[in-house]
Amino acid sequence: MDKIFRVNMTDLTCKVEEVPAEFATLGGRALTSTIVAAEVPPSCHALGPNNKLVFAPGQLSGTPAANSGRMSAGAKSPLTGTIKESNSGGTTAQQFAKMGIKAMIIEGLPKEDKWYRLHVTMDGVTFEDASELVGKQNFDVIEAMNEKFDKKIGVMTIGIPGENRLASANISVKDPDQKIRSHGRGGLGAVMGSKKIKAITVDATGAGKVAIADPEKFRAAAKVFAKGMLDHPVTGEGLPTYGTNVLINILNEAGGLPTKNFKYGTCEHHDKVSGETMHDTIAGRPNGHTKHGCHAGCIIQCSQVYTDDKGEYITSGFEYETVWGLGINCLIEDLDDCARIDNAMDNIGIDSIEGAVLLAVAMEAGVLPWGDGKEALRIMNEEIGKCTPLGRILGNGTGSVGKAFGLTRVPVVKNQGIPAYDPRSVKGIGITYATTTQGADHTAGYTIATNILKVGGFVDPLSKEGQVELSRNLQIATTAVDSTGMCIFVAFPALDIPEVLPALVDMLAARFGVEMSVDDFVALGTRILKMEKEWNTKAGFTNEDDRLPEFFELEPIPPHNAVWDFTPEEIDELWNF
Amino acid sequence: MDKIFRVNMTDLTCKVEEVPAEFATLGGRALTSTIVAAEVPPSCHALGPNNKLVFAPGQLSGTPAANSGRMSAGAKSPLTGTIKESNSGGTTAQQFAKMGIKAMIIEGLPKEDKWYRLHVTMDGVTFEDASELVGKQNFDVIEAMNEKFDKKIGVMTIGIPGENRLASANISVKDPDQKIRSHGRGGLGAVMGSKKIKAITVDATGAGKVAIADPEKFRAAAKVFAKGMLDHPVTGEGLPTYGTNVLINILNEAGGLPTKNFKYGTCEHHDKVSGETMHDTIAGRPNGHTKHGCHAGCIIQCSQVYTDDKGEYITSGFEYETVWGLGINCLIEDLDDCARIDNAMDNIGIDSIEGAVLLAVAMEAGVLPWGDGKEALRIMNEEIGKCTPLGRILGNGTGSVGKAFGLTRVPVVKNQGIPAYDPRSVKGIGITYATTTQGADHTAGYTIATNILKVGGFVDPLSKEGQVELSRNLQIATTAVDSTGMCIFVAFPALDIPEVLPALVDMLAARFGVEMSVDDFVALGTRILKMEKEWNTKAGFTNEDDRLPEFFELEPIPPHNAVWDFTPEEIDELWNF
Repeated sequence: MDKIFRVNMTDLTCKVEEVPAEFATLGGRALTSTIVAAEVPPSCHALGPNNKLVFAPGQLSGTPAANSGRMSAGAKSPLTGTIKESNSGGTTAQQFAKMGIKAMIIEGLPKEDKWYRLHVTMDGVTFEDASELVGKQNFDVIEAMNEKFDKKIGVMTIGIPGENRLASANISVKDPDQKIRSHGRGGLGAVMGSKKIKAITVDATGAGKVAIADPEKFRAAAKVFAKGMLDHPVTGEGLPTYGTNVLINILNEAGGLPTKNFKYGTCEHHDKVSGETMHDTIAGRPNGHTKHGCHAGCIIQCSQVYTDDKGEYITSGFEYETVWGLGINCLIEDLDDCARIDNAMDNIGIDSIEGAVLLAVAMEAGVLPWGDGKEALRIMNEEIGKCTPLGRILGNGTGSVGKAFGLTRVPVVKNQGIPAYDPRSVKGIGITYATTTQGADHTAGYTIATNILKVGGFVDPLSKEGQVELSRNLQIATTAVDSTGMCIFVAFPALDIPEVLPALVDMLAARFGVEMSVDDFVALGTRILKMEKEWNTKAGFTNEDDRLPEFFELEPIPPHNAVWDFTPEEIDELWNF
Repeated sequence: MDKIFRVNMTDLTCKVEEVPAEFATLGGRALTSTIVAAEVPPSCHALGPNNKLVFAPGQLSGTPAANSGRMSAGAKSPLTGTIKESNSGGTTAQQFAKMGIKAMIIEGLPKEDKWYRLHVTMDGVTFEDASELVGKQNFDVIEAMNEKFDKKIGVMTIGIPGENRLASANISVKDPDQKIRSHGRGGLGAVMGSKKIKAITVDATGAGKVAIADPEKFRAAAKVFAKGMLDHPVTGEGLPTYGTNVLINILNEAGGLPTKNFKYGTCEHHDKVSGETMHDTIAGRPNGHTKHGCHAGCIIQCSQVYTDDKGEYITSGFEYETVWGLGINCLIEDLDDCARIDNAMDNIGIDSIEGAVLLAVAMEAGVLPWGDGKEALRIMNEEIGKCTPLGRILGNGTGSVGKAFGLTRVPVVKNQGIPAYDPRSVKGIGITYATTTQGADHTAGYTIATNILKVGGFVDPLSKEGQVELSRNLQIATTAVDSTGMCIFVAFPALDIPEVLPALVDMLAARFGVEMSVDDFVALGTRILKMEKEWNTKAGFTNEDDRLPEFFELEPIPPHNAVWDFTPEEIDELWNF
C-alpha cells in the first residue's frame, strides 16, 4: 500500500500518512505541484518555515516502462519565487516507487543550528546527525555514504552552495554509476539547505515491485512504446550517438546558437565543442563511453562517460545546454575545460545551466576574461564552491550577477537564466521562456522539436505565426509527461509516431487500473499547468512577468538580425485556454 | 519664461522646450512623476536606454516661502522597480527655479564608454569630459568643482558606487555649507551612473527671481505659514533643538525602536545615541552647531554640524533614521563612530537609511560583529566605496544582502529597506511601508505623527483601527507636499494649526495666479498618487507586493509582543478611494 512520508524538521518527526484518494493516480510533477499548491502559502519566504520540499517519483517510476525513472522535486523556488518542479534521473525515483513512497513532504525548519541527514527506509524517516558531512562537496558525500552503507544506498545531497542557500544550488542525486544527476533548476538545493538537510539516504531494503493492475495490457503497451523510442531518428539514433550535444551544429546552422552572452546567433568555433567532436573525442580515449543512461531502464542512453586522454574520469551527463553555455556562450573552446567545469558544478552542486549562463554575464562584467576556461574552473571551485563574496554573487544566479554589476544584458525570465536557444531566432522557445510557470526553461515547452528538428511538423522559427499555439500545446503535454516519470525525450516519438502516445496512456491506465484516454492525459497536463499558474498569480506574478528582458527587443541578433517582436497581447494569448 | 531642458545622452544634445500648459502649476514630485509616467515604459530596465532621470524643483522653490528649497528627482528605481521620487535639500532647487528651469529630463545612454559632467546654465546644458572626476568620491568632486568654478557653483554628484550602478547609490547635492544632502532613496545615483553622468554642475549666472503672480497675497500667506512653523512644538522646538534624532527616546518609550535587526522594540543603550545626548555632545565641542539648515530659507534648522572633540568636522544632516540604523539596529553604541559612518555614506554616495539597514542584515549574516563601528566604517570606505565583491553585495541594498546570505529576516518592502519604526508596534507606518508607491518609505505617509507624536489627533499605534485611513490620508497629503518643494515637516503644523494648510495653498495660488482651494491641493495629491500606482501596476506590481516580510507576522516583538496582523484584504483597502 502506497503511503506519504511527512517529515517535520521543527519537531523532527515523520508521519506515515495514507495516500488521499485524489492522489491515487498522480505522480511526479502532477503530485509535487498539487501538494505545493495546496500546502505552501504563495507569499511565504522560500527559505522560511512555511516552504515545503516535496519529492515524488513519476507515475510509472519503478515499473518496467522504458525511461520512467525520474523523480520530481517541488517547492517554492528561491530563485524565481514561482512554484517549481525539477526532475532528475538517478536511483531514488525507482527506490521510492518500489518502497511504496508516493511522496515525501519535508516541512518546517529545525529549531537548533544543527545539520541532519534524513535516512529513508520502508518504515519511515529517521534524523541522523550530519556534522561529519557538512562542508563536503557532493562526490565526497556520496563516497562517504557508499562506505557507510554500500553502493546500493540511494543518495540525494547538496554541496556547500546548498548549505549556504545560494539560489543556483541544486539537489544532486547519485546515479546507477555512482555519478551525479541533478534536480537542477530553480535552487531547490537552497530549500534543502534552509531546512538543514545535508543529505537524504535511501535504504530500499524490503522494497517490492510496483503494483500493476493489468500486467498484460501494461506489457503490450510498454513494448509498443519502447519500439517507438527506438524507431524514431532522434531518440533511436541522434541522441544515442552524439548525446544532447548533437544540437550545437544544428543550432549554429539555424542561427539560434547564442554566442558571447547572446550577442550572436552563430559561433565560428562551434565544431570544437560539437556533439560530433565530443563523440570522436570520447570514442578515442581510454575508458570513454559514448552511451550511458541516467537511470536504470533508459533505452536512449544520451549520457556519456567523458575521460581525459589517460582515461581518467572527467564527467558524465554532459548536456548540450552546458556545453553550449561554456563552449559557445562563454567562448571556452577547449572541450576538456568545459567537461572539467561541468564536473565541478556537479561536485559543488549548482545547476549547470544557470552556472554556465551566469558565467557569460560575469565575463561581460569583466570578472574573468572571455573564454578563460581555467579561470572559470577556479571560480567554480574556489569562489562559488567556497561561497566567498564573489561566489555568493555568482552562485545566486544570472540575475544576481546582473544586479551586482549593474548590467542590462542579463538573460533571465523570472530571474532564471535563459538556456541555449536564442528566442529571437527561434521564436517559439521565447514564448515558452516568457510564459512557463517555472521561469526561463526550455524543457517546459520544447518548441525546438518543431521549430528546428521538424518533429511534430514544422513551425518556422523566424516567424511569429503559430508559436503561441505550439508552445501552449507543448507546455500542456510536458506537464503531463513530467508527471509520468518519463524523460522529456519521449515527446519526440510521441509527436511523430501515432501509436506512442496511446501506448504511454495505456501504460498509465494499466498501472493504476483505470480507464484513461489521450484526452484524459492532456486534461491532466492542462489542470496541473493551470494550478501552477494560479499559484504563481497568488504569489504576485502577473502578465508583466511573462516578458523577456528588454535587450532582446533592442538588439538584433545576427545572422538573421532578428529581434524579439511579440507584443504583450500576443504573448498573453498563451494563457487563453 | 520657464522652460524644460531635455538632455539626450545618446546624441549629446540638449533641447530647450516650452513648458506644456498642463505642467504650468506643477513642480517637484507632481512633475517628475507626471513626466516619468508619461515617458518611461514601465517594463523598461532601470539602467537601460529607456529609463529617464528627471529633476524638478518644487512649486514654491526659489520663492521666499520658508522651507521650500527641495528638489525632486524621479525615474524608474533600480532598487525597487517602482516609480521613484526622491527629494533633497541643497542649492540646486532654488538655482533651477530662479533660472526658470521647470524640469530637466535626461534620457538615453551614451554610445561611447566615456563619462560626462553636465554643465547647466541659463542657455542649456553642455557635455563636459568628466574623466578627471571619475573614481573620486563626493567630497572630492565638490572640492574640485569649487576650485574650478567658485563656491556658488551648484553640484549634484555620484560616488564610486553610483558609477558602478549599485542600487543604494544616491545623488548627492552640495548644500549651502559645502556639505552634502542627498536624493537618498531608491538608487537614483545608479540611474545617473548608467547614463555615465558623474556630476551635474549648475552655474546660475543671470538667474532672476521666481515670478509670483500675486506678490501681496503671497507675502501675507508666507507670513502666516512661517508663524505656524515656528509656533508648533515639533517644528518650532523639538526639531530645532535636538534634530530629527529627538525620536530615539520617544520611539524607545513606545517600544517601536527596532533593535538588532528588528529583534526587539526597545534598546538598553538608547540614551547613548539619543537626540538629547547628541545635542549635548555637539554643544560641548569646538565648532559644533546644534542648528543648521539643509537649504537657504529653512526656519526649522533640524540639521547640525557634528565635530570631534578637537573641533574637526565629522558630519551634518545626521538624521534620526541613520542614527537609529547604526546606533540601535546595528548596536553601534559610540555616537562618534555612527557620525563617521554617516559621513562616509555621504562621501561614497549611498543612501544612509539603506546603508544602515543593510549593515544590520550583514551583521546577522556574520559579515561583521554586532556593534562593531570601526569595521562598519571600514566596510563603507573599503568595500562598498570601492565596489569589491562584498561591497557590491552590500551596496545593492538590504534585499541584496539578504539574498546573498540566504536570510529570511530581511526588512524590505519592494526591495527597499524598512526604516526606523517597527511596523508591528507602530502599525500605521506598517501600512505606509506596505502600500506606498515608493517601496518601504516612512516619509511617504508619516503616521508616526499621529501614532506617536499625537500630531493631527491620536491613533493608537498598537491597534489596527484607523491605520489604513490615517496612512491613506497622509500619503495623499505627502504627495502634494512633495510637489511644493517644502520639506515634509511642514505637515506637523499643517495637521495641528488650522491656518497653516490654507496659507500653503494660498502661496501656491499666488505664485501661479490661479484659484486654488485646500480641496484642489488634496486633489492634486490624489491624482499624482494614483498615477504612480497605475504606473507601478503596469510595471507588474500587484497587491501581493503590498506586503511586509513574513518574519513580521511570525515573530512577536518585545516589549508589546506585537506581530504584524493585518489581513491582505485590510491592507488592500488602502487603495480603495
